[in-house]
Amino acid sequence: MGGSPASRGGETGADPAALRHVREQVTRALEAFLEGQRPVVLGTAGELGPGLAAIDDLLTGGKRLRAAFCYWGWRGAGGGSDPGIFTASAALELLHASALVHDDVMDGSDTRRGRPSLHRQFSARHSEAGWHGSAESFGRGAAILMGDLLLCWTDELFHSSELGAEALRRGARLLSQMRTEVMAGQYLDLVEQARGTGTVDAALRVARLKTARYTIERPLQVGAALATGEAEAAAAAYSRYGLPLGTAFQLRVDLLGVFGDPAQTGKPAGDDLREGKRTVLVAIALAKAGPAEAALLTRRLGDPLLDAEELEEVRSVISDAGALAECESLIERYTSEALAALEDAPVTPGARQALAELAVAATSRIG
Amino acid sequence: MGGSPASRGGETGADPAALRHVREQVTRALEAFLEGQRPVVLGTAGELGPGLAAIDDLLTGGKRLRAAFCYWGWRGAGGGSDPGIFTASAALELLHASALVHDDVMDGSDTRRGRPSLHRQFSARHSEAGWHGSAESFGRGAAILMGDLLLCWTDELFHSSELGAEALRRGARLLSQMRTEVMAGQYLDLVEQARGTGTVDAALRVARLKTARYTIERPLQVGAALATGEAEAAAAAYSRYGLPLGTAFQLRVDLLGVFGDPAQTGKPAGDDLREGKRTVLVAIALAKAGPAEAALLTRRLGDPLLDAEELEEVRSVISDAGALAECESLIERYTSEALAALEDAPVTPGARQALAELAVAATSRIG
Repeated sequence: MGGSPASRGGETGADPAALRHVREQVTRALEAFLEGQRPVVLGTAGELGPGLAAIDDLLTGGKRLRAAFCYWGWRGAGGGSDPGIFTASAALELLHASALVHDDVMDGSDTRRGRPSLHRQFSARHSEAGWHGSAESFGRGAAILMGDLLLCWTDELFHSSELGAEALRRGARLLSQMRTEVMAGQYLDLVEQARGTGTVDAALRVARLKTARYTIERPLQVGAALATGEAEAAAAAYSRYGLPLGTAFQLRVDLLGVFGDPAQTGKPAGDDLREGKRTVLVAIALAKAGPAEAALLTRRLGDPLLDAEELEEVRSVISDAGALAECESLIERYTSEALAALEDAPVTPGARQALAELAVAATSRIG
Repeated sequence: MGGSPASRGGETGADPAALRHVREQVTRALEAFLEGQRPVVLGTAGELGPGLAAIDDLLTGGKRLRAAFCYWGWRGAGGGSDPGIFTASAALELLHASALVHDDVMDGSDTRRGRPSLHRQFSARHSEAGWHGSAESFGRGAAILMGDLLLCWTDELFHSSELGAEALRRGARLLSQMRTEVMAGQYLDLVEQARGTGTVDAALRVARLKTARYTIERPLQVGAALATGEAEAAAAAYSRYGLPLGTAFQLRVDLLGVFGDPAQTGKPAGDDLREGKRTVLVAIALAKAGPAEAALLTRRLGDPLLDAEELEEVRSVISDAGALAECESLIERYTSEALAALEDAPVTPGARQALAELAVAATSRIG
C-alpha cells in the first residue's frame, strides 16, 4: 500500500497531543483484543505462538493515524467521551496491519518497521527448523493467513466496541465501503505499475483512491457515522479536508521512500526505487527530466541490486529535474487546501484544532 | 484449504432437497449482493471489471454446503421462515470463496472448479496485455486482493441480513471464532506439510480443526446462534454430529483428490499427488505400505511432473496398501457416528431429516 510511514515519531514536534492521546487508548484496546484472541488461536494451533508474537510486534509500531482520524471524526461530529470509540478506531489499525502484511507479500518486501517483514520471519522459521519444501512459499502462505486473520479481526474488534446497534450499523456500512475501495484502489495501483504509463495524473488518481480515502477521508467519516445519524454536513467537510490532505500525505510518503532516513522509515534507503514504485514523485521526475536523465531513471527503477552510488545518482536525477521541489510545493498546496476546508467545517472547535495538528503530523518532513 | 469438492452435483442422487432449496436462495442472495458492490468497485477502479466477472464465475460453482449447514442449524434450533437467514448463510460462501482464492495462491494451483484459478486468470491478463514486470507476481498480487475483498464482504453480507441486532451479535461472535479457527487450522496444515512427519493422527487433527469445524460444526452453530439465545443444547449436538461428519467429508475429499474423476472434481487427475498433499489417506498408505512401496510413494509425492503412468503407479501403491479401503471404512464409521448423534439431538424433526440427507451428500462417492 506504501501508505504508512514507519516512524513512531514519538519524540518529534509532529506528534501532537491529538495523536498521542488516541494512540495510548488505541494501543490499550489492541492489546486487550489480542490477549482475548490468544486462547482461541493457540487452542487451535499452539504452533502459532511465534506468529502471534510477530503480530504483536507489528501492531506495536505505527503512528495510529487512521485510528486518530476516526476518533477525531467522531469528536468533530459531536461524539462524546464513550471509550468504545477507541475500540472502534483501533479496528482500523488491524485493517491497516493486514494491508501491510499482504502488501509486503505482494511486493516481496524484506523489511517493515525496521524488522523483517512477516513473510520473511516465517521463511526464516522454516529454514531454521530444516522443514521440507520451499521456505519462501511457506513464508508467503503463512503471511497470507496472518493478513487474513488480521482482516477478520477488524470486524470483531469494531463490533465489540459497544457503541450501540444503530451506531455500529451506520459505521460498519462506511467501514465496508472503505475496505472495498481500498482493495479496488490497490488493484488500480497494481495495474498502473504494470502498465507503466506513469503519467502524473494517473499517479495522483491512485494516491487519491488508494491512500487519501483510506487513510483520512473514510476514517473521519466512519467516526462521524458512529457519532450521529445526521453526519452529512460533517462528512462532506471531511471529504474536502481529507482528500487533499491524504494526497499530500502520500506525496510525503513518496519523498521519504526515496530521500528518507532509514532510521525514520524503518526500511532500507532507496527501497522504493529498488522496487520500482511508480509514485507521483517519479512521474513528475520522468516528465520534467531531459531525455538522457529520464532514460537513466527508467533503467534504474526496479533494479533490485542498485548500490548506494547508483541510488544517489537516481536521487540526483529526481532532485535536479525539480521533482523534489515540485513535490514539496504540492504537499504545501494540498495541505493548505485541507486547512482552508477546516475553517468553515461544521465540526466542534476541539476537533478543528486537532485536525489542524494532524494535518501537520501527517505531512511534515519529520514523518 | 482442500476442503471443497468442486462438483456442483446438480444431477446426482447426492443433491437432496435439503441442499437444493438452500442453494437457490443463497445464490440469489449472492447475486444481489454482487450487483450492489459493482458500482462501488467499478466507481473506484473500472479496471476491475474482469476481476468481478471472475468472482461471479467462482461464486457460481460449489454445492453451498456451508450455507446449507448454517441454514439447517438455524431451522434445527427453532429458526423460522425469515428470508434473512439465506443472506446470513450466503456470507459463509463468500468466506469460502476467499479461502479458495488464497489457497490457490498458497498452493500455486492452476485450476479451480474446472477453470483457471483466479491468480492464473490475472497472470494471463497481464501477459496478454504485454504489461511490464512479472505476470506471475501480478496475478498473485491481484488474487490476494480479490481474496481480501471477498473476506471483507463476508461481514457486510452477514450484517445486511436484517435478523436483528441481538441475533446478529450472537451469530457474529461465532462467525468470528470460526474464522480465527480456520486460519489457525490452515497454518497448522502448512506446518504439518512442512514438517512432513505425516502420522495419521496429525493428519486427522488437521482434518478436524481445519475442515470439520469450518465446514460443518461452526456453520451449524452460527445458524443456531442466529435463531436463539438459548442454543447451548443444539450447539452441543451439532458438535457431536459435525465433527465426525466433517472428518468423513475431508476423507472423501482426499479420496476424490487422488482417485476422483476430473469432470467431477474440476481439477486435473492426480493434482493432490503432484502438490504432495499430506492427507489422512497418504498417511495411512505410508503407515501400511511395505518399505519399497512407501519409499516410492515418498519419492513421487510432490513431484509436479508426474505423468499418467506414474500417477497410476502411486494410486496402486495407495490402494494395494489397503489405504483406500481403510479410508472408505473410516468414512462409513464417522458418518454413522454423526447420524447416531442426530438421533437424540434436541432439534426439530425437519432439520433432523435434512441433516441426515446432508450427511450423505457431504460424504458420498458421487461427491
